[in-house]
Amino acid sequence: VNKNTHWSECSRQRRDFLRLGAVSGLGLALGKVNLRTSVAADNPETSLGPPSVPPIDPVRIGFVGVGSMGNDHLNSLLRIEGVEIRAVCDIVEARVARVQEMIVKAGQPKPKGYSGGERDFERLCRQEDIDLVFTATPWEWHAPVCLAAMANGKHAAAEVPLAATLEECWQLVETAEKTGRHCVMMENCCYDRTELMILNMVRKGLLGELLHAECGYLHDTRALLLSGASRGAWRLAHAVKRNGDLYPTHGLGPVAQCMNINRGNQFVRLASMGSQSRGLTLFAEKRFGPDSPQTRQPYALSDVVTTLIQTAAGQTITVNYNTSSPRPYSREILVQGTQGIVRKYPEEKIYIEGRTKGDDWEPLAAYRAEYEHPLWKAVAERAKGAGHGGTDFIENLRLIQCLRTGSATDWDVYDAAAWSAVLGLSEKSIAGGSAVVDFPDFTHGRWKDRLPLRIVPA
Amino acid sequence: VNKNTHWSECSRQRRDFLRLGAVSGLGLALGKVNLRTSVAADNPETSLGPPSVPPIDPVRIGFVGVGSMGNDHLNSLLRIEGVEIRAVCDIVEARVARVQEMIVKAGQPKPKGYSGGERDFERLCRQEDIDLVFTATPWEWHAPVCLAAMANGKHAAAEVPLAATLEECWQLVETAEKTGRHCVMMENCCYDRTELMILNMVRKGLLGELLHAECGYLHDTRALLLSGASRGAWRLAHAVKRNGDLYPTHGLGPVAQCMNINRGNQFVRLASMGSQSRGLTLFAEKRFGPDSPQTRQPYALSDVVTTLIQTAAGQTITVNYNTSSPRPYSREILVQGTQGIVRKYPEEKIYIEGRTKGDDWEPLAAYRAEYEHPLWKAVAERAKGAGHGGTDFIENLRLIQCLRTGSATDWDVYDAAAWSAVLGLSEKSIAGGSAVVDFPDFTHGRWKDRLPLRIVPA
Repeated sequence: VNKNTHWSECSRQRRDFLRLGAVSGLGLALGKVNLRTSVAADNPETSLGPPSVPPIDPVRIGFVGVGSMGNDHLNSLLRIEGVEIRAVCDIVEARVARVQEMIVKAGQPKPKGYSGGERDFERLCRQEDIDLVFTATPWEWHAPVCLAAMANGKHAAAEVPLAATLEECWQLVETAEKTGRHCVMMENCCYDRTELMILNMVRKGLLGELLHAECGYLHDTRALLLSGASRGAWRLAHAVKRNGDLYPTHGLGPVAQCMNINRGNQFVRLASMGSQSRGLTLFAEKRFGPDSPQTRQPYALSDVVTTLIQTAAGQTITVNYNTSSPRPYSREILVQGTQGIVRKYPEEKIYIEGRTKGDDWEPLAAYRAEYEHPLWKAVAERAKGAGHGGTDFIENLRLIQCLRTGSATDWDVYDAAAWSAVLGLSEKSIAGGSAVVDFPDFTHGRWKDRLPLRIVPA
Repeated sequence: VNKNTHWSECSRQRRDFLRLGAVSGLGLALGKVNLRTSVAADNPETSLGPPSVPPIDPVRIGFVGVGSMGNDHLNSLLRIEGVEIRAVCDIVEARVARVQEMIVKAGQPKPKGYSGGERDFERLCRQEDIDLVFTATPWEWHAPVCLAAMANGKHAAAEVPLAATLEECWQLVETAEKTGRHCVMMENCCYDRTELMILNMVRKGLLGELLHAECGYLHDTRALLLSGASRGAWRLAHAVKRNGDLYPTHGLGPVAQCMNINRGNQFVRLASMGSQSRGLTLFAEKRFGPDSPQTRQPYALSDVVTTLIQTAAGQTITVNYNTSSPRPYSREILVQGTQGIVRKYPEEKIYIEGRTKGDDWEPLAAYRAEYEHPLWKAVAERAKGAGHGGTDFIENLRLIQCLRTGSATDWDVYDAAAWSAVLGLSEKSIAGGSAVVDFPDFTHGRWKDRLPLRIVPA
């Protein structure tokens, strides 16, 4: 199938679909939803990405940032066929050496090493035998690395969040459009077993028309931030300077997929509110004493940041960010529609009108046989043992599959920009006393014609 | 204790306390919290209410609105000593007759009956042998009845919400101040066993300094609203006309008490967001057909309304309102502090740093022996069988106790106004595209000097 032909065809379908929705009136609003769902389920393509990219095989990768998450990704990538690691870059020379050794042990030629300072990734991006630059650096380096990669004709993939500021979101979108390169944010939580199953339930219409969702990143990271280790220090620097939701994508990614954001729907506006900032100071005081620099250092970041997002379809999303207080881990993940509601935390539960017996939640596990996502079924066995419950393997597998077959990726630069935009927008809202702030339309109106994501079985 | 002397003394304590807090700096912020907590625990008075009211014994009541909740309250009141029901008013004459009979059966003289139209409560308010006018009418009549009661020198108590609009909130506050009468909103959820226990935990400092709370009213009321019965019809009329959080107090009341709202703390501002309105239409379509008036009627009310509130102390509160969709009942109720977090729904769980073993929630029940609220312990046996798990009995018991002893009530008109103000403010915020809206200061600055609530053992 020629990509451009396919794009036009999809556009036409979408226009017909919108026209049908427009004349259908209130009574047919249900029909509209069902149609949307069925289009999603039948669409042979996952999404309409950047201009057609020919298949790449093998996928030759230059990897930037091989700390904890970088190692995790490399371990996954080395288990996927059609992958060659051609270059490794890190500011710590010893890490580069260790990874080079690891790659040689895995049976590949020794990749080229770069550790000549914090901008040495630019040399890596110029290396000719690389198709994809993959980065797992601190947040503030994701965008610079991706921009350098695309400027040198490489595809780019980065850990979350793809961009730390709104300006970076725009730069990435514009550069991806100009160069025709993929720019993909690696949101592993979109491939979590439960999140995939919820997406499958939504696609099959079990919840009806979606109304509301809740999600977030609720993780006591005080010990990490104040560990003194480098992987805490750069995060701590963000907490010193910024007040907003600095890590929205783990929760928002899966919810955005359920709601077809950038694919017939869009984030329209948000309002954020932040609590006092206490947790880091109290933790530092206990660990380092009242006069330690960590205790005397003021922290801008609220202990609890809550964001409300409105979508073009009218839905609401509550996004929670809660990283400086003692509490159990959660990403919330609650999706509510006209026919039922499903939640992941604190326990996986569901309520479906006409199916759930009684008035209380029932265990989500009872729906697994019927709604397990085909991708999970296909790759769960292979993903075992990989980071974050196997999701790190699946996200890499899907990326490589898409590149090798020349398909659109499961998310693209518009998704990465929309999800990452919450950092800058929530910061702006809080600075303005919870003023409502509009999302930019990174797609320039094309969100109306793009088709919903379907994650194909592997 | 003379009330005025006590007021001054408390004011002085509060000023000292604030001064101490102001010079203490960041390191002593903890000390500030502990002080606040211990003041609350030791304070012999529950709160500083309106000007001193002499003891009233017996409490002679005129009751307005004897539908379902009115009956519930009367059943509780008849079990409390020192209560005499002197008058009953309802637009339905048969209800008045039934209640008169019930009261005679309970051994009291037949109360006077009023059923001469929807403003006949005004005659009841002029009846001389009445101390307290208690109303359980539809929402829009709470304020008119309370205003008429106070204008005639009676104390007033009303079901939730006390006021349906901001203008009514102000009228009630000003009238209570001018007349020196009590004006109390009967928020039974403040006396729920779990909410009381959480309040007790907060007072004892178990959660540390409070940072955030979540609460709400999440109750599938579609069948009630579309039942055709009168108790659904007037609620439905609100859903037709208004879009906002129309029923915030069940969740917000207990949270406000934990956070000492109007007693050293205050609601400062809010932002609200509403989803599509689908649930009532879909339900009506299924029950009455696509061409029924209920299906063709547009509904202003969003299926899901979410509100963020910021307090003067910096805390955030998420308030959920979710009444038109299939889902299990919840009031959320989550309270988070610097030392831990407790939640009521979907299951009662808690996590306390240094006490909870492991990283996961533990059952709240494990804390019951230590933190059960003394009021609950004292009256649970007597409350058995009363409406809403006994809370309807306890709220009435506390009201009557306070009136009979001349004490300040557990809440007063400022609390009722602040909690009820969310209706009008959330409506305004949603109408403005989730614009942030400031709370009025109903106390005219006196919230700074009022002492935290302590609910005394019964």
